[in-house]
Amino acid sequence: MQLSGRSIIGFSASQAGGASQTGGAGSAGGRVLYGVNPATGDKLQPGYESANLEEVDRAARLAAEAFSVYGRLAGDHKAALLREIARNIEGLGEALTARATQETGLPAGRIQGETARTCSQLRLFAGLVEEGSWVDARIDHADPERKPIPKPDVRSLLRPVGPVVVFCASNFPLAFSVAGGDTASALAAGCPVIVKAHHAHPGTAEMVGLAVRDAVHSCGLPEGVFSLLYGSGSEIGTALIRHPLVKAGGFTGSRAGGRALFDAASSRPEPIPFYAEMSSVNPVFILPGAMRARRDQIAAGLHASVTLGAGQFCTKPGLVLMAADAEARAFAVKLGELMAGTADFTLLTPGIRSAYHEGVASRLEHPVVEIVAHKTAPEGQGGCQAGVALFQTDMKSYREYPELGAEVFGPSTLLISHSGRADLLEFASTMEGHLTATVHGTDEDLRDYADLLAILETKVGRLVFNGFPTGVEVCHAMVHGGPYPATSDGRSTSVGTRAILRFTRQVCYQGFPDAALPDELKNDNTLHIWRLVDGQWTRD
Amino acid sequence: MQLSGRSIIGFSASQAGGASQTGGAGSAGGRVLYGVNPATGDKLQPGYESANLEEVDRAARLAAEAFSVYGRLAGDHKAALLREIARNIEGLGEALTARATQETGLPAGRIQGETARTCSQLRLFAGLVEEGSWVDARIDHADPERKPIPKPDVRSLLRPVGPVVVFCASNFPLAFSVAGGDTASALAAGCPVIVKAHHAHPGTAEMVGLAVRDAVHSCGLPEGVFSLLYGSGSEIGTALIRHPLVKAGGFTGSRAGGRALFDAASSRPEPIPFYAEMSSVNPVFILPGAMRARRDQIAAGLHASVTLGAGQFCTKPGLVLMAADAEARAFAVKLGELMAGTADFTLLTPGIRSAYHEGVASRLEHPVVEIVAHKTAPEGQGGCQAGVALFQTDMKSYREYPELGAEVFGPSTLLISHSGRADLLEFASTMEGHLTATVHGTDEDLRDYADLLAILETKVGRLVFNGFPTGVEVCHAMVHGGPYPATSDGRSTSVGTRAILRFTRQVCYQGFPDAALPDELKNDNTLHIWRLVDGQWTRD
Repeated sequence: MQLSGRSIIGFSASQAGGASQTGGAGSAGGRVLYGVNPATGDKLQPGYESANLEEVDRAARLAAEAFSVYGRLAGDHKAALLREIARNIEGLGEALTARATQETGLPAGRIQGETARTCSQLRLFAGLVEEGSWVDARIDHADPERKPIPKPDVRSLLRPVGPVVVFCASNFPLAFSVAGGDTASALAAGCPVIVKAHHAHPGTAEMVGLAVRDAVHSCGLPEGVFSLLYGSGSEIGTALIRHPLVKAGGFTGSRAGGRALFDAASSRPEPIPFYAEMSSVNPVFILPGAMRARRDQIAAGLHASVTLGAGQFCTKPGLVLMAADAEARAFAVKLGELMAGTADFTLLTPGIRSAYHEGVASRLEHPVVEIVAHKTAPEGQGGCQAGVALFQTDMKSYREYPELGAEVFGPSTLLISHSGRADLLEFASTMEGHLTATVHGTDEDLRDYADLLAILETKVGRLVFNGFPTGVEVCHAMVHGGPYPATSDGRSTSVGTRAILRFTRQVCYQGFPDAALPDELKNDNTLHIWRLVDGQWTRD
Repeated sequence: MQLSGRSIIGFSASQAGGASQTGGAGSAGGRVLYGVNPATGDKLQPGYESANLEEVDRAARLAAEAFSVYGRLAGDHKAALLREIARNIEGLGEALTARATQETGLPAGRIQGETARTCSQLRLFAGLVEEGSWVDARIDHADPERKPIPKPDVRSLLRPVGPVVVFCASNFPLAFSVAGGDTASALAAGCPVIVKAHHAHPGTAEMVGLAVRDAVHSCGLPEGVFSLLYGSGSEIGTALIRHPLVKAGGFTGSRAGGRALFDAASSRPEPIPFYAEMSSVNPVFILPGAMRARRDQIAAGLHASVTLGAGQFCTKPGLVLMAADAEARAFAVKLGELMAGTADFTLLTPGIRSAYHEGVASRLEHPVVEIVAHKTAPEGQGGCQAGVALFQTDMKSYREYPELGAEVFGPSTLLISHSGRADLLEFASTMEGHLTATVHGTDEDLRDYADLLAILETKVGRLVFNGFPTGVEVCHAMVHGGPYPATSDGRSTSVGTRAILRFTRQVCYQGFPDAALPDELKNDNTLHIWRLVDGQWTRD
């Protein structure tokens, strides 16, 4: 596949050999960004020209125009698009794996797994909108005889909000990027999508972007249903979020970046929802019974979870709470052995490697932190190599140095030994919001620490018992979210079918004749969806 | 009933004759506000002392403490509280009507109707949480055999966000005030509530506040489940919204006030959702067939809707779009006669009266506005009397003077004659968000103007056909919301059972044993609620 190095705005903009119709691509701004092979440090061709403000405006206008058609499309037509996108991505085959591994340093198996997940995610949303009940259709029939005033006929359902801007994530070149969860859920809801590519994998973005564009085309949909722009988050990203025709945004990335975009979205003349998934340290609580019963097993599982994907997951366990006893000391030794035996990793980008090295260095030198295991990756390979690091401290020291609670993005974690229940409960009560909290315990532990669980429930989106937080299942019940600063909107999820709700609004029809109502609200339930009719859920 | 003039924070603070335990009430700040009888301008006793920052903090701390109990209460216990509140309010009887009519100038019948609506609203939410399916419980069972990795057991439901601050509305002393829709939906969700009283009806607020406090007490719940504070929105309101223990806010009022509080909520170190219902002009479109068929009937209905509650409803029709033909001219004459024959009103507050008079004056003097009917209320009565005003202009002039689209809160509306379809469609495409849009038409009109309806659907929360937007039915399907500036969060509703969703977040449990799960997620569905189990909705 010949990559063009261009933004995708409209069908014709990126056609091989065709003249650019994007107006300004390559002429204005003119900044060019290149993928980098993190294993070698080599610059990858082609260069990608940053979009300019005219292109931002053009993409937003095309999206708004497309919304008038796409926003009213029946569920099975939206499903057809999602399935076609999945098929097109699968059709990229080895070429996609080759480019994505080159750009990210992730192994081919991981890229293939993530591609499969991306496609199954698209198909999950296709199934959801084909089935159709997600619109929460409600009908309250009229009662003209009611006193003192007649009751009107009132019906309502969820409708798409309008054009959505999606920011690709550095650490998921596929599942949280061009055709990832945010795009799939926004398209499923009926929202055109404008994607801002991540500089870590511009070529992967273009390949997937073309797959989406071709699907939009072959489904006969307006070109503005999908665009893909290159450029910096602070310039092009902010311009997209501040564009008056954009109605929502989805983001996965750093706390600083997410907060800046959230602030831009909230301070617009017309504020819009902005769903940023930002940072999470995902504390793991090993309770006494579990430590006694499954010490080595937990150490093995934790080691796998901390090092999965080189520790570059937002659900990586970054703090481990355990008692200050002999069992816990043996656990730390065991985990230290496993970490010390772990081969070096290639991190995703030079920026991530620098941040990881800084995070590790600050702990290496920290007066209250003990080094359990630490491997320094050999210098001079020119790439983003990094070694694991396992640290330990106690709760009293941790309280004195709250900076130890910051996320270190990479294969490292911090063990904290506490002096008992009160210590643990205070830690939980005062901790920030996270995506997940994990508890290892026996049934007896669960009873003894019910109050800990009650606190954790108010602090995270997902509680994991006797498992590990990495590996987020894509299903109806999943919640990948959590109170600030885990996300900017702790009410919602970015994974699982409830993610579609983020891009919807409630719309009500009062007193309309049957023929003028959306199909979902007509008297005859031809779509066979679940509806709340006069207070009763029914498919009749 | 002896009113005390005090904030309600905790059980003992307002007990008759007892010493104040609020610490600072009456000592700090010391500003005292009085109700005013808008019919006479008389100051009403007692004076109400503004809360101080210590009291804000105390209320927030008590609410956060109460949340750990109240947030985990079973649905039937929350329902018992809501029903007890309704009973207590009904028990206030004539005394409540007397005080509320004195403070608002609204007729006794309106106060009685609003009291009934408030209580039925509380009971609607009681029924909702007793039934229990609103929590959107979802179960995806484990599949240990799945390849390449086992599928975990994942379950989730909606949980309350935490303490909620509710701002009373000037124009609904009961249904959108102390125990109004926001309070009912927040309490139903499991959130403690701190109410900021409105200065327009402090005595009504205290009576209802005591009714709520007594219900909290007699249900054996922690005192922090409910507090009521007096003070200005910009000081006490902002302090409440910025308090770190507060997790959401609900507001009905002006655009400036709502936006300022939304900005305060969004710019916190931890941003919180803030649901402000702010301003709406509620355009009414009279299509040609309807104008021919029901001209006088529409005029009569519109007159009733514009003058209902002295035009002080957020759903009052403030713009009426009609053709520039003989039928429309006759319609304007008819509506003008009805308006001219309307008795003067007493508006709610001196501030609302001033704003109304300014709004009317700006149209009276406007170069492109024709006065169809205008009554000047007699001066010198000392109160908030005001007369109706009906204005007319054409679309071309309206476009030149967009300020004519501003909300005039009171018994006035503006007729706009357009030159045809294109004019109408452009108006709809460029208009701001509103709570409602109303269309009068025949079946033929509906077919001819399907494109108008499609645009309006993206601009409002509720479309009304052949009716009027005032009179918001409290039911499952109602949407009282709409794109900015109608509200600060156009995804949601403040009326109807979906209002509960505003104060919830999604929480997920992975791999938990049955005994440790919330009842809603246990294997055995003892609550008999609807649940999404492995993708199928079931009550089994």
